[in-house]
Amino acid sequence: MEKGDGKQGKGGQQKNAGQGQKPVESAIKPTRAEDYSAWYQEVVRAADLAENSAVRGCMVIKPWGYALWERVQAELDRMFKDTGHKNAYFPLFIPKSFLEKEAEHVEGFAKECAVVTHHRLIPGPDGGLIPDPKAKLEEPLIVRPTSETIIGASFAQWVQSYRDLPLLINQWANVVRWEMRTRLFLRTAEFLWQEGHTAHATQQEAEEETRRMLDVYADFAERFMGMPVYKGAKTASERFPGAVDTYSIEAMMQDRRALQAGTSHFLGQNFAKASGITFQTKNETEEHAWTTSWGVSTRLIGGLIMTHADDDGMVIPPRLAPAHVVILPVLRGDDTLTVVMEAVEKLKQTLRAVRYHDRPIEVEVDARDIRGGEKNWDWIKKGIPLRVEIGPRDVEAGTVMVARRDKGPREKASMKVEELAQTITAILDEMQAGMFERALEHRKTHTRIIDSRADFNAFFTPQTVRMVAGDERPEIHGGFALAHWNGSAAVETELKEKLKVTIRNIPEGIPEAEAPGTCIFTGEPSARRVLFAKAY
Amino acid sequence: MEKGDGKQGKGGQQKNAGQGQKPVESAIKPTRAEDYSAWYQEVVRAADLAENSAVRGCMVIKPWGYALWERVQAELDRMFKDTGHKNAYFPLFIPKSFLEKEAEHVEGFAKECAVVTHHRLIPGPDGGLIPDPKAKLEEPLIVRPTSETIIGASFAQWVQSYRDLPLLINQWANVVRWEMRTRLFLRTAEFLWQEGHTAHATQQEAEEETRRMLDVYADFAERFMGMPVYKGAKTASERFPGAVDTYSIEAMMQDRRALQAGTSHFLGQNFAKASGITFQTKNETEEHAWTTSWGVSTRLIGGLIMTHADDDGMVIPPRLAPAHVVILPVLRGDDTLTVVMEAVEKLKQTLRAVRYHDRPIEVEVDARDIRGGEKNWDWIKKGIPLRVEIGPRDVEAGTVMVARRDKGPREKASMKVEELAQTITAILDEMQAGMFERALEHRKTHTRIIDSRADFNAFFTPQTVRMVAGDERPEIHGGFALAHWNGSAAVETELKEKLKVTIRNIPEGIPEAEAPGTCIFTGEPSARRVLFAKAY
Repeated sequence: MEKGDGKQGKGGQQKNAGQGQKPVESAIKPTRAEDYSAWYQEVVRAADLAENSAVRGCMVIKPWGYALWERVQAELDRMFKDTGHKNAYFPLFIPKSFLEKEAEHVEGFAKECAVVTHHRLIPGPDGGLIPDPKAKLEEPLIVRPTSETIIGASFAQWVQSYRDLPLLINQWANVVRWEMRTRLFLRTAEFLWQEGHTAHATQQEAEEETRRMLDVYADFAERFMGMPVYKGAKTASERFPGAVDTYSIEAMMQDRRALQAGTSHFLGQNFAKASGITFQTKNETEEHAWTTSWGVSTRLIGGLIMTHADDDGMVIPPRLAPAHVVILPVLRGDDTLTVVMEAVEKLKQTLRAVRYHDRPIEVEVDARDIRGGEKNWDWIKKGIPLRVEIGPRDVEAGTVMVARRDKGPREKASMKVEELAQTITAILDEMQAGMFERALEHRKTHTRIIDSRADFNAFFTPQTVRMVAGDERPEIHGGFALAHWNGSAAVETELKEKLKVTIRNIPEGIPEAEAPGTCIFTGEPSARRVLFAKAY
Repeated sequence: MEKGDGKQGKGGQQKNAGQGQKPVESAIKPTRAEDYSAWYQEVVRAADLAENSAVRGCMVIKPWGYALWERVQAELDRMFKDTGHKNAYFPLFIPKSFLEKEAEHVEGFAKECAVVTHHRLIPGPDGGLIPDPKAKLEEPLIVRPTSETIIGASFAQWVQSYRDLPLLINQWANVVRWEMRTRLFLRTAEFLWQEGHTAHATQQEAEEETRRMLDVYADFAERFMGMPVYKGAKTASERFPGAVDTYSIEAMMQDRRALQAGTSHFLGQNFAKASGITFQTKNETEEHAWTTSWGVSTRLIGGLIMTHADDDGMVIPPRLAPAHVVILPVLRGDDTLTVVMEAVEKLKQTLRAVRYHDRPIEVEVDARDIRGGEKNWDWIKKGIPLRVEIGPRDVEAGTVMVARRDKGPREKASMKVEELAQTITAILDEMQAGMFERALEHRKTHTRIIDSRADFNAFFTPQTVRMVAGDERPEIHGGFALAHWNGSAAVETELKEKLKVTIRNIPEGIPEAEAPGTCIFTGEPSARRVLFAKAY
């Protein structure tokens, strides 16, 4: 296993790269190498993406973070509609009795949830408000942790005949799961997500749908987020409560942990039976429908950060960027203000007239009256792809200074305005491709074929590694391991407890993983390798 | 007051127009004239917009209804962004102590709300789930009925200096108010809305913002929804709890009741004081910010229905239509199927290439294997602007049959495909303008200058009117009354209790209302007339 590089393999952000130079100061303290977890929190703060609220475990998504989520929504929503889905909206509250209908489901979701018990507050004995004992609900309501049961109740009414199938519905919504340990975007009590829910006439169609949406997620993660993922089925112990099969996409973060970034569930007829979703077939028999559900959440933003951000802050892939360019006018006194601001406005219009993957080039103008250096660093930390400076001399020469987020913070190049307009989409595509390539390289470097328990333990056991000369620190673990496993749940439990390692999924598209072999834990035969990692 | 016409003054939908013909059967039973309230429910059902859920007072918004809401969102969101606002997201839950901070606010919103008291369910003695007594929250959480207090807590952290102002934020979210009597879209326990929240350095700027957003709402209502509105300030008794001034837009529904369709609040420094939103001024003094809030909700869909729908179902104004055209292939046997479906696909592409107000013409294709008549009526009831039939003979002739939703259900015209492509935007604009004109005419017809208490009582007292010869039925009331009022809250209370009439607002843009006069209730001087109506 490699040592000494806790950062992405390539790219312009290596500050302490050990080339004999003095380490360059970074904008984010601590750095990834110093304290990955604290670095993450600081990137979120410095990029102005989100913050904790006064409500336990609930976050406030700030404008720049929400704009990222809006970009995720826009692209996924289009992909869902292109595959025939329609949006709808179902109640926030789920009657307790609905949750109780599916045995495994209630086991999975009733444990930590927000329970509404009253519908009124009245002044209490000490002057504050108390729930009115007279306004106690006959049946408590649960704030939805997921909506299979409440949507199932609607589907049962909507579906009568095979002609009503397939029913392809998606919902954008907030959900609540009472989490004990929360972390911005990655795990919060309330989060935003989409949940697709579909019903089909046959098992085969439902299974195809499950796979289709997994493919949509993988495509989105790789093409838009620049985040390579492994698709695959979950093992039985990691399935969605009530599902027959669960598939996930799993990405490797910069600290080599896995992030489950999206899941798609084949629910068989379990929820159709629990909710009474039946239909009349062409042969006039009555059957239960076959259903699926699938979702991604604001957790994706956490994945985006941990895939691309560096020691100077956020790095946003161009295809997800709320804005592609920030124009930073260089203002030196009032006499040049008008001429510079006119040039800024003209440049903005010129760039907005350029189309980048069916959107105009989106431009921010930062004309705040603060120091230029501070302004520049603000946008580096926010991760906007391009920063364009324009001052009085640039206006005269018809040029601008262009800085790319994937280059060093002080690197910039002078360019004619026309040249920028002509090459900007190529530059952005190059940045997008470069980000994906770096992430792919990182995953490749830290994915191992492992054939013995000893190697497996060593790969996942924290050990002290040398980051740079004189700076030894504990490294978390090796990364992704592809190893043979006999299918035993007992092995999974043991690995989870002893090493905090889980089987992420049974990955597809890795030829080396598909040959049969011997389970490294039991010595029993194994049909193929599965993907092990520590995970968020 | 006019008699005998409970419907819109003009248009093609008058079925029982008393021209000596036998009344034509309508698609919606009962009709508006027969039972307005039941008609409304039936339009919602027949157009497949929404339905009641198993959760008391919470609705399910079905795909066609949600697509309408998405159109509302898309246009308003653009208008908010054009006026400098950014979206963000704040917690669903509000700590009880936050609500208690503003005295009037808690009075207004603590009364009927959803109270979360526990965070876990466990099996109870009788086998079902019960809230775990060990998981009782120290402080109950309220599901947000509106977010001034929780957003105020964030603003207090975000605003330090005058440089941070104005702060212009909007949130798209679900909110819950525990309503006793609910009606789909118009009044539901959970509803979807947007809430704008802004903070400013000066009173004047905050007041300007309040007015600016009221103008945005009015512009949206009139230009997109085709729903004329009166803008104006609310009287003190109708203000938002905690606001200094509340402004509303008020529209007249077809039953002549008013619908408050949007509100914009100038909050003064009340919420800034409650939440501690202070800033350092240019002169380095510390001051409280001036804040505003403003919102519209899924109630707008109810307003849209009650403004335009007719006795055949929904009628959607083209600029809000999720789809402008449905293509209905006329299929007569398998031998023509391919050629017709090819022509359908080609027509779809031809129409989608046409731009209508910055969107492509959106096209639905209904190739379901059901009777053509049923299919046609389904889309009439859904209110899609244009229905285009295409059969084997049309394909040969290069023509289509075009039916407009604002004409009779059986009226259709043959047209060359090129002609349709060339004229479709003009047709849609004509429909949009016509819908607004009819609604305006309706409002004009039923708005009265009233100068005595006797006339006022008569105007608002239910009386039997003749709809058509031999069909007498009770008419609800007259409509909008412009009358002088001395500003007395006691008068407002009396009118509300005795006649169910309220002052909707102090309307702007009505010259006749602006002259001083004498209060018709007290004989005291009155500065100007105000707008009275029964309301939803």
